[in-house]
Amino acid sequence: MFNDFELTDDRPVYIQVKDYLKRLIGKGSLRPGQKLPSTRELGLLLSVSRNTVIAAYAELESDGFVYAVRGKGSYVAAVSAPPEAAAPPFEIDWLSRINGYARQAVELDRMKNGIRADKNVISFTSIAPDEKLFDLEQVKRAFLDRMAIEGNVLLNYGYAKGYKPLIDYLLTYMERKGVDLSGKDMLITSGFTEAFDIVLSALRRKEGGSVLCENPTHYTAIKNFKLNGYDITGIPMEQDGIHLSALERALSERTYDCAYLIPSYHNPTGIVTSPAKRMAVMQLMARHGVPVIEDGFNEELRYSGSHVSPLIATAGRGNGVIYLGSFSKVLFPGLRVGWVLADRRLVDSLESIKRSRSIHTSTLDQSLLYQYLQNGNFEKYLKKARSEYKRKYEWTKLCCETHLPYKRLSGDGGLHLFVEFEAHFDTTALLRACADQGVIFTPGDMFYTDGGGRHTMRLGFSRVSDEHIARGLAIIGRTARRMLE
Amino acid sequence: MFNDFELTDDRPVYIQVKDYLKRLIGKGSLRPGQKLPSTRELGLLLSVSRNTVIAAYAELESDGFVYAVRGKGSYVAAVSAPPEAAAPPFEIDWLSRINGYARQAVELDRMKNGIRADKNVISFTSIAPDEKLFDLEQVKRAFLDRMAIEGNVLLNYGYAKGYKPLIDYLLTYMERKGVDLSGKDMLITSGFTEAFDIVLSALRRKEGGSVLCENPTHYTAIKNFKLNGYDITGIPMEQDGIHLSALERALSERTYDCAYLIPSYHNPTGIVTSPAKRMAVMQLMARHGVPVIEDGFNEELRYSGSHVSPLIATAGRGNGVIYLGSFSKVLFPGLRVGWVLADRRLVDSLESIKRSRSIHTSTLDQSLLYQYLQNGNFEKYLKKARSEYKRKYEWTKLCCETHLPYKRLSGDGGLHLFVEFEAHFDTTALLRACADQGVIFTPGDMFYTDGGGRHTMRLGFSRVSDEHIARGLAIIGRTARRMLE
Repeated sequence: MFNDFELTDDRPVYIQVKDYLKRLIGKGSLRPGQKLPSTRELGLLLSVSRNTVIAAYAELESDGFVYAVRGKGSYVAAVSAPPEAAAPPFEIDWLSRINGYARQAVELDRMKNGIRADKNVISFTSIAPDEKLFDLEQVKRAFLDRMAIEGNVLLNYGYAKGYKPLIDYLLTYMERKGVDLSGKDMLITSGFTEAFDIVLSALRRKEGGSVLCENPTHYTAIKNFKLNGYDITGIPMEQDGIHLSALERALSERTYDCAYLIPSYHNPTGIVTSPAKRMAVMQLMARHGVPVIEDGFNEELRYSGSHVSPLIATAGRGNGVIYLGSFSKVLFPGLRVGWVLADRRLVDSLESIKRSRSIHTSTLDQSLLYQYLQNGNFEKYLKKARSEYKRKYEWTKLCCETHLPYKRLSGDGGLHLFVEFEAHFDTTALLRACADQGVIFTPGDMFYTDGGGRHTMRLGFSRVSDEHIARGLAIIGRTARRMLE
Repeated sequence: MFNDFELTDDRPVYIQVKDYLKRLIGKGSLRPGQKLPSTRELGLLLSVSRNTVIAAYAELESDGFVYAVRGKGSYVAAVSAPPEAAAPPFEIDWLSRINGYARQAVELDRMKNGIRADKNVISFTSIAPDEKLFDLEQVKRAFLDRMAIEGNVLLNYGYAKGYKPLIDYLLTYMERKGVDLSGKDMLITSGFTEAFDIVLSALRRKEGGSVLCENPTHYTAIKNFKLNGYDITGIPMEQDGIHLSALERALSERTYDCAYLIPSYHNPTGIVTSPAKRMAVMQLMARHGVPVIEDGFNEELRYSGSHVSPLIATAGRGNGVIYLGSFSKVLFPGLRVGWVLADRRLVDSLESIKRSRSIHTSTLDQSLLYQYLQNGNFEKYLKKARSEYKRKYEWTKLCCETHLPYKRLSGDGGLHLFVEFEAHFDTTALLRACADQGVIFTPGDMFYTDGGGRHTMRLGFSRVSDEHIARGLAIIGRTARRMLE
């Protein structure tokens, strides 16, 4: 005994001695009632100082593993029956216990089933922002500023609705985008996804809801619609947004619980819905009484063209739009902060659902984000990010035009482009052939609501270097041409 | 025009000028095609520098609100149809749209419907840790240390499963508590509540599940069982844990999907289940094949008595226990970090549900917590916290014994005590009478699964000063005696 003790660098020595003795007690090598070596003896045996052993014994005593008898020494306490003695066999067949919802969540989990990019692969799969653009110094400053102002209370419980200064900031922010705030309220969530899932869970029906959306659309939306039991009707996209007469036809054929739209830098097509089309869509939705879930996705990145209002602004005082916003997509995805801006009565329900699901969003994330915005960093950052992404967008577009035998290329900016080949082309086969050459992208079919899109692909360029963009697209283009022959 | 511009301190001046002009464009005071004043003129009109106006115009131009004609000046761009012109009336009756789940979430939302304590009230309602004990300097250090090590990647997307270094740390931490990790895996969640809700959602049945728990029990558990459609069977508590023969009877009468247990500092009774009872409970559960959701609530605070293993440790290699842990309860509730330790196949499903609900837990929270633990602060903090809470617990217990006409007082430590009066006594009436005198507590009936407990109350003492504990309990005691007469 005591000859297999090994010191490591990662924790204080007395803690290591304590844990070592706990393990010996746990294994039964040291038995209840057994006398421990004196502190001097154990120090010698383990080659640590006597004071270290004294500290370890004190910890063990306060944790109830050891008791001291004055003048005699320390003894091993009566431990709750050792596991090996009484542990009954307790096996559950979990795969038969989990329900359809859990199984479907696994099936629809593309992240789990997708291709993992190793370091040398040129990957166009991500549409996350480029972390090299983040201004870490300002993030640190924001953290320290906020800590200095509020201190310890930042680390205790907050409110389900969100961190009040951030809510106030974002309300003003949305008002400046032209939103009429009367009758509306805001809930802070752990990113867009939580906001979206909470909204769907509040509106779904027992017998299965129904939803309208653009086709193709954001994969997470498709996944969460399915997980929440919605029946999905996808409406085709044109170069300036959703196909209006197809939308009108769908609306006249049946009723829908809600519609989900991504008006800016639509995922995956990259299309920005034109102002005229926004207005026309809203008129249709209002006429048919179908509420709209507006995904504010990457709206902040718009860097050209005339001013375009979010749908919720075009609705004026109307309460038919649920706006889901997030800075995470542009600013810091690691900080999970999103928000819902919608009718006050609806938000009141969403707040209670949020509380039941996760109590509240990290106060640290919220307050850091608030201070970062308050310090005036966002405008500066956006300026830098917009100009860099615009440059990259143009470069990627040029490379696509140069190399790819596409039929249609869409994307008005943002962080990605969408490519359509001839109808018979198969981008999943293309991906396999390209992956062998160290280039990957996202085949477009996963974004389609109707099994279509096998001839399409999404190219995220935000985290790919200029050189890799050119080299990757040359490889994709060469491979596609070979397959087309 | 231009006479209602008011400068504030909160943002850069050029941004304020920009926003001011955006508002004028939005209101229609400035119309499409209209020429803006020269930069010099507007500077004079608004009493700001010309450079400020130049910067504002440049921003407006890049945002598409304004276009410049070389040699002539800046003009208002054609804005998407102004809201007031084309906004269709778009009103949704949300209260008729939200479903039973959302309505129930509001009804069961005690935070929303509870008594709010104003500053001068002595409140025994909270069982959150005392933020005065937090060591802010070490939190700052952890943040800066981690930022220095990992930098920008901390702010980009992470993994649904959690931040790898934290998972590894917590696995070791659980192993040191005696848990056999073979066949098990861990998922990081946004606190206990998210972990709990995800587990319930994976195990519930379409036709409604069934669950066993202690009676009384944690209110959030009751709420989330109901929201997830579970039928709840509560088993009475004895002074050393759940009533064994009542548990055995219940198990023999029907099947249950799972059991939920809080073995340490049980909420609300404060009871620590004895080692012998833990073993007996686990044997019963194993025999009946009912998986156990173990709530590790405040287990880290145990400061006396012999060593007690968590239930998951007593199960050895068995996979029948789902352990839900959280440092938030003791350490920093503002950081929303909890974890699930359970069978590997189950955790794989839970991970996909987690991804569909909130992508991943804040990387900032996780990495800061990891670095804080890694820096060796937790042991030191726990030592301080345990000794302070123990002192407070004893003081509160003494005050209860001195002032309260209780029938039974329970609570082995932690952050709260539980009081039972004579069966006919009504603590809701007591609360009303005490609130008038500036003292509030939590009537116990909300913790009961069967409508009982009207004669009980929970006293959280962690955030009440010694003086207020004495004064508050004197008032409660005096008022209770008067009501008993």
